[in-house]
Amino acid sequence: MSWNRVSVVGAGLIKMGELFDQSYEQMARGAFDAAIASVDHGMDPKDIDAVFVATQRGTLWGQEGIGGNTVPSALGLNGVACTRIENACPSGSDAFRVGCMAVASGLHDVVLVIGVEKMRDKSSEEGLLARAAGGHPVYTRGESAPVLFAPFATRHMHDFGTTKEMLASVAVKNHHNGKLDPYAHFQYEVTVEQVLNAPEVCSPLGLLDCCPQTDGAAAVLITTPERAADYTAKPVQVAGIGIATDHPYLHEKDNFVGMSATVGASSRAYEMANLGPTDMDMAEVHDCFTITEILDIEDLGFFEKGKGGIASLEGETALDGSIPINTSGGLLAKGHPIGATGIAQLTECWWQLREEAGDRQVKLRSGNALQHNVGGRGSGVSVVNILTIAE
Amino acid sequence: MSWNRVSVVGAGLIKMGELFDQSYEQMARGAFDAAIASVDHGMDPKDIDAVFVATQRGTLWGQEGIGGNTVPSALGLNGVACTRIENACPSGSDAFRVGCMAVASGLHDVVLVIGVEKMRDKSSEEGLLARAAGGHPVYTRGESAPVLFAPFATRHMHDFGTTKEMLASVAVKNHHNGKLDPYAHFQYEVTVEQVLNAPEVCSPLGLLDCCPQTDGAAAVLITTPERAADYTAKPVQVAGIGIATDHPYLHEKDNFVGMSATVGASSRAYEMANLGPTDMDMAEVHDCFTITEILDIEDLGFFEKGKGGIASLEGETALDGSIPINTSGGLLAKGHPIGATGIAQLTECWWQLREEAGDRQVKLRSGNALQHNVGGRGSGVSVVNILTIAE
Repeated sequence: MSWNRVSVVGAGLIKMGELFDQSYEQMARGAFDAAIASVDHGMDPKDIDAVFVATQRGTLWGQEGIGGNTVPSALGLNGVACTRIENACPSGSDAFRVGCMAVASGLHDVVLVIGVEKMRDKSSEEGLLARAAGGHPVYTRGESAPVLFAPFATRHMHDFGTTKEMLASVAVKNHHNGKLDPYAHFQYEVTVEQVLNAPEVCSPLGLLDCCPQTDGAAAVLITTPERAADYTAKPVQVAGIGIATDHPYLHEKDNFVGMSATVGASSRAYEMANLGPTDMDMAEVHDCFTITEILDIEDLGFFEKGKGGIASLEGETALDGSIPINTSGGLLAKGHPIGATGIAQLTECWWQLREEAGDRQVKLRSGNALQHNVGGRGSGVSVVNILTIAE
Repeated sequence: MSWNRVSVVGAGLIKMGELFDQSYEQMARGAFDAAIASVDHGMDPKDIDAVFVATQRGTLWGQEGIGGNTVPSALGLNGVACTRIENACPSGSDAFRVGCMAVASGLHDVVLVIGVEKMRDKSSEEGLLARAAGGHPVYTRGESAPVLFAPFATRHMHDFGTTKEMLASVAVKNHHNGKLDPYAHFQYEVTVEQVLNAPEVCSPLGLLDCCPQTDGAAAVLITTPERAADYTAKPVQVAGIGIATDHPYLHEKDNFVGMSATVGASSRAYEMANLGPTDMDMAEVHDCFTITEILDIEDLGFFEKGKGGIASLEGETALDGSIPINTSGGLLAKGHPIGATGIAQLTECWWQLREEAGDRQVKLRSGNALQHNVGGRGSGVSVVNILTIAE
């Protein structure tokens, strides 16, 4: 028996990329319109009685710092309940979790969860991360995102014989999938040789082991199973939700071959859904770096600890593999507009479960899909959501 | 019949002020310890299964920008579910709303809602607001907070004959209450003459019409009514919650003598609680400026539109008045550490309803109290929470 108290009745996103030509509000509007258009029987926007906006890094761009206040007006929803959710890289997936709680609490009926992120309108020197680092005792000494993940790759190689070719296979697969996804930032294939020969960013990670900075927006519409029948004959149900934190600093981690937050979040989500990793038909997981996807697929239970690299190399995570991972292209190819990322992943799961994923469609067996993010000083928090078409 | 699905079983805060000697994490720890200590029968922190952190402006101070990730570790709650809620000035009161939904949804049992804000560690020139304004089309032309509120004072004076003495009476009352509150930033009386003769900030508002920038933290502990019995024989119930947005820009407002967001939020909260303004024994309302309190007490239905100024002057909102307002000293005297403000207001309501407010104690009649914030480009969003001791 799954939870079965919240249904997804619409989902959509905008083409990811460097969207200098669109404002924050225009990006939000595009995702909102796409989600509304996806509702099978149509939805009057006036039905929406609460909005949760996921925007992580907006605070240096004027309005976006209070996106919870400004998005409703831009969507024609003035007056509606609206809150901004921030939880580092899982901001979007956590906004979905909070939206589900709003519906399940009985306080809201039809909820819009929308993620919007402007990553490219400021230079690296002017951006929020650079300014946040000012005077910080650790960050100013080089603790950037690649530095937070690379040690996991080094240790995973040391302990399990994981190779750079295995890491590269993740990038190759995700770029392959991204080429099939009309919403992906990057829509071209890369080869193992290109990944291995790319400029080094932080050993052992090269440029193509790293996700890009991407502008984007995505939205989902959720409601009670009862109301869902008004909107669609093909709802997707929320089966499980899990979130867990971990100590923020690297020196506090209990190991460097996995992420405790992901393990905690997924075990909570599986327990709530009464499902396990073998019940999943596909998963969208947090591949901010190639090594992260390898850690994820182990921490989420798809592969034994230490076997994620070889599984990737052998095609187990490809579209026709035993557990297709990041069919959308993942963060590596689709991009990582932070607040939008989790909601874009959920949109991909929704499409897959409704068999609307076109050339990326996976074969459905159990009718369950998993979505995962990890982030916040690397791995300070993780969120896992499980969707299902099972009754 | 009230909602009666969430109970407040603990609440506490730290002394507000310029807390250069405390880190963000230390402030959080202080508020958390105070809340835990307030639980009548004691609480094992391990009982807490979700945390909501309200921090609004943290993003330029390193860790605080991802406070949802870093606060659990600092409180000894590593692993717990944790999310940061940002909603401009109502960030704290909205975090409380989200926490209540988490409990009411059945997904979490014992929830900590904690607000923490560092306002004084950066200069005005270096701070987030200054940087957010960089290149902004309106903000850079002087649209600071006083500028967003002063036109309401001018128009209220024009339409209703409200005077500067009436505005001043709000500051005098709140400083009087603040002197009685050991947690207030400012603990001294001011006179009408001092308020009237203070340096002008933005006509007709002078320095003592404006709240200070304050560091602070506050925390509440909530749970189901069933679990509440484990912690206290004197729980306070959540009767109603309301939130509403309004267009963000001044030129979009439908009037300048009231705030639509407050009207919307309070009507939703009253309806949910099945209570009205005359049922409240006291209220903590958003007095970022003296005029704001006058608008609030009208918009919340305590006084007819246009009568808030004279009611204040005549003492109707004093500790022994018909509806005591801001018994804690309000934002004007207690201070306005943004993310903490709403939660500190709720703590005052909790003390008042438990008759633990010392020299500030009001007479209980119906056993209901109201807490209110408005903010976000002035009045882009409002949250109203209603607490009760009634069964």
